[in-house]
Amino acid sequence: MAIGVIDSARGVLHSARARTHGLELDELLDSLERELRAALEQCPDAKAIGLGIPSTIDRERGYAISSVNLPIIDVPIRDLIGERLGLPTFIDNDANVAALAEHRLGAARDTENAVMLTLGTGIGGGLILGRQIYRGKNGAGAELGHIVIDYNGPRCQGNCPNYGCVEALASGTALGREGRLAAEEHPDSALGRMHAEGTEIDGKVVTEAALAGDAIAVGVVETIGKRLGVAFASLANIFGPDMIVIGGGASAAGDLLLDPARAVLRERALPPMNETPVVMAELGPDAGMIGAGLMALEEAEGAA
Amino acid sequence: MAIGVIDSARGVLHSARARTHGLELDELLDSLERELRAALEQCPDAKAIGLGIPSTIDRERGYAISSVNLPIIDVPIRDLIGERLGLPTFIDNDANVAALAEHRLGAARDTENAVMLTLGTGIGGGLILGRQIYRGKNGAGAELGHIVIDYNGPRCQGNCPNYGCVEALASGTALGREGRLAAEEHPDSALGRMHAEGTEIDGKVVTEAALAGDAIAVGVVETIGKRLGVAFASLANIFGPDMIVIGGGASAAGDLLLDPARAVLRERALPPMNETPVVMAELGPDAGMIGAGLMALEEAEGAA
Repeated sequence: MAIGVIDSARGVLHSARARTHGLELDELLDSLERELRAALEQCPDAKAIGLGIPSTIDRERGYAISSVNLPIIDVPIRDLIGERLGLPTFIDNDANVAALAEHRLGAARDTENAVMLTLGTGIGGGLILGRQIYRGKNGAGAELGHIVIDYNGPRCQGNCPNYGCVEALASGTALGREGRLAAEEHPDSALGRMHAEGTEIDGKVVTEAALAGDAIAVGVVETIGKRLGVAFASLANIFGPDMIVIGGGASAAGDLLLDPARAVLRERALPPMNETPVVMAELGPDAGMIGAGLMALEEAEGAA
Repeated sequence: MAIGVIDSARGVLHSARARTHGLELDELLDSLERELRAALEQCPDAKAIGLGIPSTIDRERGYAISSVNLPIIDVPIRDLIGERLGLPTFIDNDANVAALAEHRLGAARDTENAVMLTLGTGIGGGLILGRQIYRGKNGAGAELGHIVIDYNGPRCQGNCPNYGCVEALASGTALGREGRLAAEEHPDSALGRMHAEGTEIDGKVVTEAALAGDAIAVGVVETIGKRLGVAFASLANIFGPDMIVIGGGASAAGDLLLDPARAVLRERALPPMNETPVVMAELGPDAGMIGAGLMALEEAEGAA
């Protein structure tokens, strides 16, 4: 987890990271409390705490409901943390607050409606509609990685029971899988030689090989980019957004990935939505931390 | 076109229909003016006019921008009609105002967020988010028929350059196409006999045969329903809506169509979005007319 302090001018005064992998719920809460106390020592006049949690959220009750990667089932985390730290506490989904940060301070500044996709092991989504986070019922929704692009396609990942989701076909995991297949088919390529030498071919390796100029890796990145473009076309037709913002580690190939996606969006979406700009996120891995702080700041100001 | 008068208690005082098929723009505007004058004679104290137009709309400038079925390219229709009739005039997309009507008076009453699909020759879409019509940039967007469910699928219809849209695979047109194939494959079925006797097998014929109990026609309706269900799963994952509302002539098979769609939604969407209710629209073919009036009423009240 990332912990930070932001001020009312949206400046980041302090930031830190802590491991959460493998922790039980009690340990997770203790670690969160410890890190928050350390952050608050840097900033004794803090007014509020914002938490961005990779979980479905019931904002009304302040509960984290369920999470793929954390030991969370129906935890009243807003009140637990608020009581331990003695500050007003606000919670939201981590992808939602990352999208908020990109809207307030990053790539989507000054837009009315923006769609954000975070490409990593999976594909996360965030929606800013009418300049506010769109949450759907119980803070669920905006699961933009789980729109189907091929209903006869492969089973999706993790707890998703669907088939042919864009996450199944165009996430960092899919990039690695397609890269391994290409490495086996093309043993003379840079990717093929790394594979033969025992390097584990994952999304990061494929991206690096593509950026270094390996034509086979470039082709794999293009294949994934075209699939992303199909999802962009659906999202553009649905939202008529001002822009689509792409973040996350698996977007590191940049235009090698996004240019093929943009071409598919231009070809496939209805006019004028086919002209929707696709831009890279600007805030990097700190977007979630910054957005959690912004969310708390805005909620505290709105409540004041 | 449908023309009506509604009062501030949302009652329909008068309604009429007029042909627009084949008219040039001038004839269309003249016909619209004539019908509106006839309606206003029934209601001399009318305060505003609302138009729901099957077109992309620039609400700020009051222009109808382009339409698949009407001879409209960049027509300043709000001001043209407002000046001819001497009343404040408001315009919006027809599917948007139909969704508004279902939200204010129909199946989606009291919901916060509702997704509406209108099944006909094509598939239209309307979004009510935060109890308001979601319009996207320039009133484009909410083209929910043009989300892809099979990116290797068949070319879509009309002016859509995409492949494998839900409109291409699950509209009334697709229902007829699958029905013809099934009729040829099963000459002994009721559908097959009608086909052999020269009946043109379209979506309406397939629906009627299914409702009359022909097993082959029921199977065709199920196939289309399952494809709809794939789109429902994507929309549920995106919006976490309170409900999905289905209207339009091609939904006449009712639960024969929607039960297979609901089953796919339950199986494929992420929890808790897989529990999204799917309900039939309540206002029928007048939803657009009623919604145009409601839109004008709300805009006029908001402006007052």
